[in-house]
Amino acid sequence: MTSILEAARSNVVTPAIRAVADEEEIDPLELCQRIAEGSVVIMHRGEKCVGIGAGLRTKINVNLGTSNVSVSPDEEVEKALVAERYGADMISDLSMGGDIPAIRAAVAGRTTLPLTTVPIYQAVAEHGLEDLTAEDILATIRAQAEEGVSSLVVHCVNPHMIDLLKAQGRVMGVVSKGGSITSSFMYLNQCKNPFIEHFDEILAIAREHDIVLSLGNTARSGCIHDPQDPVQMEEMRQNIELARYAHHMGVQAIIEGAGGHIRFDRIREVIRSYKTHSSFPLFVAGPLPTDVAAGYDHVAGAVGASAASAAGADYLCYITPAEHLSLPSPEHVKEGLIAFRIAAHIGDSVKRGAVGRDLEMARNRAEFNRGGQIACTFDPERAQQIMETAGNEICTMCGDFCAIRLMKAICGSGKSTECPDKSVRF
Amino acid sequence: MTSILEAARSNVVTPAIRAVADEEEIDPLELCQRIAEGSVVIMHRGEKCVGIGAGLRTKINVNLGTSNVSVSPDEEVEKALVAERYGADMISDLSMGGDIPAIRAAVAGRTTLPLTTVPIYQAVAEHGLEDLTAEDILATIRAQAEEGVSSLVVHCVNPHMIDLLKAQGRVMGVVSKGGSITSSFMYLNQCKNPFIEHFDEILAIAREHDIVLSLGNTARSGCIHDPQDPVQMEEMRQNIELARYAHHMGVQAIIEGAGGHIRFDRIREVIRSYKTHSSFPLFVAGPLPTDVAAGYDHVAGAVGASAASAAGADYLCYITPAEHLSLPSPEHVKEGLIAFRIAAHIGDSVKRGAVGRDLEMARNRAEFNRGGQIACTFDPERAQQIMETAGNEICTMCGDFCAIRLMKAICGSGKSTECPDKSVRF
Repeated sequence: MTSILEAARSNVVTPAIRAVADEEEIDPLELCQRIAEGSVVIMHRGEKCVGIGAGLRTKINVNLGTSNVSVSPDEEVEKALVAERYGADMISDLSMGGDIPAIRAAVAGRTTLPLTTVPIYQAVAEHGLEDLTAEDILATIRAQAEEGVSSLVVHCVNPHMIDLLKAQGRVMGVVSKGGSITSSFMYLNQCKNPFIEHFDEILAIAREHDIVLSLGNTARSGCIHDPQDPVQMEEMRQNIELARYAHHMGVQAIIEGAGGHIRFDRIREVIRSYKTHSSFPLFVAGPLPTDVAAGYDHVAGAVGASAASAAGADYLCYITPAEHLSLPSPEHVKEGLIAFRIAAHIGDSVKRGAVGRDLEMARNRAEFNRGGQIACTFDPERAQQIMETAGNEICTMCGDFCAIRLMKAICGSGKSTECPDKSVRF
Repeated sequence: MTSILEAARSNVVTPAIRAVADEEEIDPLELCQRIAEGSVVIMHRGEKCVGIGAGLRTKINVNLGTSNVSVSPDEEVEKALVAERYGADMISDLSMGGDIPAIRAAVAGRTTLPLTTVPIYQAVAEHGLEDLTAEDILATIRAQAEEGVSSLVVHCVNPHMIDLLKAQGRVMGVVSKGGSITSSFMYLNQCKNPFIEHFDEILAIAREHDIVLSLGNTARSGCIHDPQDPVQMEEMRQNIELARYAHHMGVQAIIEGAGGHIRFDRIREVIRSYKTHSSFPLFVAGPLPTDVAAGYDHVAGAVGASAASAAGADYLCYITPAEHLSLPSPEHVKEGLIAFRIAAHIGDSVKRGAVGRDLEMARNRAEFNRGGQIACTFDPERAQQIMETAGNEICTMCGDFCAIRLMKAICGSGKSTECPDKSVRF
């Protein structure tokens, strides 16, 4: 089977490439060129194809999945349904508890969205950290590829990064679960990073199943006090190098970086440093511009993600109100996802000038078209419910003293450039 | 009675000045100097004194109040209680329906926070737009001053601004309720702006009662499509001029501006344009960097307000999930307020380097001090509730595979710069 990357390199517009080109309203051959150069990837599962990268709409990933101390398969399916209903672009199943393949099969069966996994999660959950072998990890990767996942995350933390980390003296150390499990595996077995050591084998699996390889972000900072440090620089350098190699070997690659906790005014420069070093799609978790918003980290995350996507992040990993506290409930998934849809849209309004929906909303407001306003929102049901207290043509916020109405009497309809009477003086 | 501004000009540290200096941890004489130059104001009501401006913590205003089609006095009191409980710095009572003085008295009696009013709201609600006279407006200002309000908002829209507005052809025209009522009054009576015409009289009232004068923001844009335009430039120019005159005449003044709907990447420059033209405290409503977040405008508002406060806004007017849809419920007030506390904190982390609370949270996380983490949040009850599914020392998010725990085995405690074993190699 010809892979998407191979097709793009030959300027062959496959159904997947055409579907993404249509969805993003760009020329299919232009899309081929971006895929061929590595600045765009397409994740797919079944008929569903989603593009990520240069010039495309900012995409949003929803994390779900069990942990080893909290397993509720039905709730994971419910989260997947919520994710698709409220406009997620992808789902990551991060399950580490219960019958993981069965849970993922249940999730996969109820949603059309592309599905990402972090193989080391399942591998360590099934084998235990002490007994885990590199062959177990590879077997998990093979099994997940055969299941039909769209993307795999590997954490390529290297010994030099660990040395740098020790020298750095961060307040929060490493907060990446995949990165810390991989580091622990290396420490316990006094071995090299299994993903780097078996990189060619992993690429062969990814190529065979046309899976996007995601180079994980072990080094992200866990609090705004810990700045961009040499650990992160080394990870960026290595992830770009590995992405180039993967792409050269025929595997689509994205880079995770610039995530975690980053002071607000530093977000732009961190994103730009990734973007000036390579054109691979950048996947960002958060970032969170404050550490103290627990219970409302989706709001803080939306602030950071708006800045990140405006600066060039291509793909956002959402954050829910439960971040730092517990696994999210389906309601938390909804809250986090909608906050990040707002952030992605704000980013797109800057980096893509994508403000058509905003203009449509503004015109609906100027024309008192309340149904049209509801239709422009990310959660029409909630907007409708809040509006329910209002009457037909009147909003309870301003009642009869609506600014738009009052000004119509003075300069005509707000939406028109024509003013009926320019001669009125005061 | 000596006013705060008079005292500050004479370097007399009054109890109000001392209270604010203590609260903000700055030298009282330094505070006097800032008040004397106009870059800081103190709003007060009873014993409560709150400083706004240069170098101080970013403050948050909560709007509440009835409209002429929705009146529930008990709910307004409930909103005030919620506002104070969740850390609002000030309240604005914008009531336009029911027995307005009685509603405000009920609100004022149940909260200690400084209270702002927009006199034209009550004046037009009580007299009707057709019958309203300039004397009615002045009488309302006098009555509200005698009630003991802390701050009064006046909309000094001038005919030149209306001309510019007509020429501009905005999509959304004017979305300021106070500005549009004032414009309508001028249009119906073919008269000058009553606040400008009677400015000296208003200053005399403000001086007598030591009230902060807030120069309202009629010209803010109502959608991100409408850019900073000559209408806004003219309002900024005039508001700065009026603030200078007020300050010269012994009245503390703040300027409202840079609010409304502004594309994300333009927020900083708009704030900076105010800040380079004057040092008066800047009061910003929102801003909203997208038009389409109805139902979740508190999230979009937090994004804009973070950027605004990081760029120098001193005082934020919160936005609730009910914005554009209806009057907010007490629950909406809570959601909006907490989103804006996060935004103000993010802004302060940039403009004031105020990250002590973040560092405390990070240390609590590194030390698995869950009680300490809860105490660092803006809504400990909610954080506790989300955490409740978790056990004693374990979080359901990662279970046994906690990154911080795992990394402790490799490089010791994350919080320490000392690593127990730097010799481990992989």
